[in-house]
Amino acid sequence: MRAIVIAVGSELLNQERLDTNSLYISRRLREKGILTDMKMVVGDNREYLSWVVRQACKRAQIVITTGGLGPTADDLTREAVAEALRKEMIFREEIVAIIRERFRLMGMAMPETNTRQGFVIEGAEVLPNPVGTAPGLFLDTEPCRVLLLPGPPAELQPMFDAVLEARIGPLSRFHVCSAVMRIAGLSESEADARLTAALGRIANLDVTILASPGLIEIRLMGRSRKDMAEAEEAVTIAADRVRNEFARHLVTEKEESFAAAMLGRLRERDLTLAVAESCTGGKLADCLTDVPGSSRSFLGGVVAYDDALKRDFLGVSQETLTRFGAVSAETAAEMARGIRKRTGADIAVSITGIAGPGGATPQKPVGLVYFHLHTADGDVGQRRLMTGDRGVIKIRSVHYALDMIREYLDGRA
Amino acid sequence: MRAIVIAVGSELLNQERLDTNSLYISRRLREKGILTDMKMVVGDNREYLSWVVRQACKRAQIVITTGGLGPTADDLTREAVAEALRKEMIFREEIVAIIRERFRLMGMAMPETNTRQGFVIEGAEVLPNPVGTAPGLFLDTEPCRVLLLPGPPAELQPMFDAVLEARIGPLSRFHVCSAVMRIAGLSESEADARLTAALGRIANLDVTILASPGLIEIRLMGRSRKDMAEAEEAVTIAADRVRNEFARHLVTEKEESFAAAMLGRLRERDLTLAVAESCTGGKLADCLTDVPGSSRSFLGGVVAYDDALKRDFLGVSQETLTRFGAVSAETAAEMARGIRKRTGADIAVSITGIAGPGGATPQKPVGLVYFHLHTADGDVGQRRLMTGDRGVIKIRSVHYALDMIREYLDGRA
Repeated sequence: MRAIVIAVGSELLNQERLDTNSLYISRRLREKGILTDMKMVVGDNREYLSWVVRQACKRAQIVITTGGLGPTADDLTREAVAEALRKEMIFREEIVAIIRERFRLMGMAMPETNTRQGFVIEGAEVLPNPVGTAPGLFLDTEPCRVLLLPGPPAELQPMFDAVLEARIGPLSRFHVCSAVMRIAGLSESEADARLTAALGRIANLDVTILASPGLIEIRLMGRSRKDMAEAEEAVTIAADRVRNEFARHLVTEKEESFAAAMLGRLRERDLTLAVAESCTGGKLADCLTDVPGSSRSFLGGVVAYDDALKRDFLGVSQETLTRFGAVSAETAAEMARGIRKRTGADIAVSITGIAGPGGATPQKPVGLVYFHLHTADGDVGQRRLMTGDRGVIKIRSVHYALDMIREYLDGRA
Repeated sequence: MRAIVIAVGSELLNQERLDTNSLYISRRLREKGILTDMKMVVGDNREYLSWVVRQACKRAQIVITTGGLGPTADDLTREAVAEALRKEMIFREEIVAIIRERFRLMGMAMPETNTRQGFVIEGAEVLPNPVGTAPGLFLDTEPCRVLLLPGPPAELQPMFDAVLEARIGPLSRFHVCSAVMRIAGLSESEADARLTAALGRIANLDVTILASPGLIEIRLMGRSRKDMAEAEEAVTIAADRVRNEFARHLVTEKEESFAAAMLGRLRERDLTLAVAESCTGGKLADCLTDVPGSSRSFLGGVVAYDDALKRDFLGVSQETLTRFGAVSAETAAEMARGIRKRTGADIAVSITGIAGPGGATPQKPVGLVYFHLHTADGDVGQRRLMTGDRGVIKIRSVHYALDMIREYLDGRA
């Protein structure tokens, strides 16, 4: 089973808008052992779309379209697919009745244009849309099945999940299981080399590695034609080897952010955190507070961009600022001590550096960042020279600071 | 002239990685009056890719591939395109000489595998790559031209810009010019309706509207087959009407973020800013400090997530917290006054609310956010009920706070 995903909508071609539905669909298909061979984005043009669907059906066993199922004249996916498969359109009054009832419950009259959504392709199974008006369609045709889904992710995802379980998944000849592991504190090339060596050859296993600044994700997927046990065994063996090789670097084995993983561990141990940021400018606090429930462990912090704030809010001495500069190990240390003293947090972390492009000196280049972690157990200071542009230096520094917290919680800092 | 863009690389299909090159390419093409009809992502499979290129050449006048030009065995774009166009591969020693020299300058010997990059498609123009080893190729064939570019954006962009100016742009039958305007403080549907009414019918004009939480972008594009003056006239008329209609909402007429636009205006007037954030958790400071040179106007702020920080760092009284709660107009006002008093900033802004999913009460639902702006000229408080999930409420609140600064700078707050 091979799939092609077609996103329909001129706005995906002509505006700065990315098709993200295909990521969701191809990931979920992969979990069932079905690989995506191609993704496409096509505008709202019936003839063009019909041609694309016809070509796609020659190559894949399942073609999935997203978008273009709405009630307006530029929603053309139904007609285009019917044309591609040389099938008729049939009007189903009961679909319109459901849509009409939907509007009635919202206290509105159904606009006449929505009757268009009552037209379906002959032989198609109608997939209910609990969130919106556009029903999905599934054509269980040979040699290629075609699935039509609406574009809004909130409508698409539950509909796709249902049809995947009931109709598409059972067609896969593979049993699949997967695991994700995220590690930090290593370069991508070092992680890659060590991963390859540590895993060796494992039957029925696919491995992918995906690096972002300061965080590396390892995805393990077991695939077996025989049974699920064989697939699970491959993942279990691989996960053990990864855990062993990267014990000192493991951030999480869940689909969660670095900040979420650290907040989880702080909560387990009933510890609180406060931060003092200069060059990251609030990004560390922002990442932490993106996590629901973060207020249980994260007290807050100071964005001490200006030196006066480092002095007045954090108690960094003017002498330190004058003698060593705002970007220095000494200032970082006083920032961390200051925020911990004034908030009473168990763990305090500070970041000060030069994110660029301006602000560098011969002694202090762009990318130079000092970190400091201060707790009742003592102090750890770090100096790093980061590469990348301003945005990359900020996110890399945030991940590095989180990694110092990880090291501390692991008992190594 | 219609274009199809094909991104090559299994990592774009099988990992959570989006093709962003096509956004850049289709935007730049559009600026020359060339529209993109389709975007595709295909894995590293020679036969498949060759089939896709052959089909694409049947529909478009220009086909652009990105990626798959490296030296390894899974870099197959050159061979696949040659196969699609039924052309031979030719070895060009001088290309290898340039790559060898590149390695030499880095003090390294060229790996033998890089000689593969010396093979080019017969009749192709070789496009130099000043940043990497993979040269691009341009086939000036009828009826469809084919352009092969490397995948890394830092290599692709300058190469594409050069070939667009020299080879592709001149083929367009359109003269094109464009303008961007960003507005705030309106819902998308209201902005859309007012825009349509205000613009009326303008010849040679394309308009697109793109909404993100709290910020709406209007793109005006003039296209003329006759001359540039006609295209420019369309944009000038449209821009005047947009300025007129949305005078009270205009954020910027540049390709810059909301935060960058406000920092620019603060700098012009030599004003400083400090912020006190609760529910946005540092995102406002983060957006401000994403802008290079922000330290000239932005002093910093406090992320007062915990109530104790609101009290100790911002001087919010315990009585206010107890009587009105942390999410209240009174607390917001004291937060703004506190941060201004303690930093000496000209403008202070505070945000406190419930980003969800937890923390709501019957009186204070998820999405309730209080804002306060405090300056020497006085105070403005606002209460808003925001929709969306935690992430959306955070970014919408950030944009709303920036909009209060805009109103103040415009003399309306």
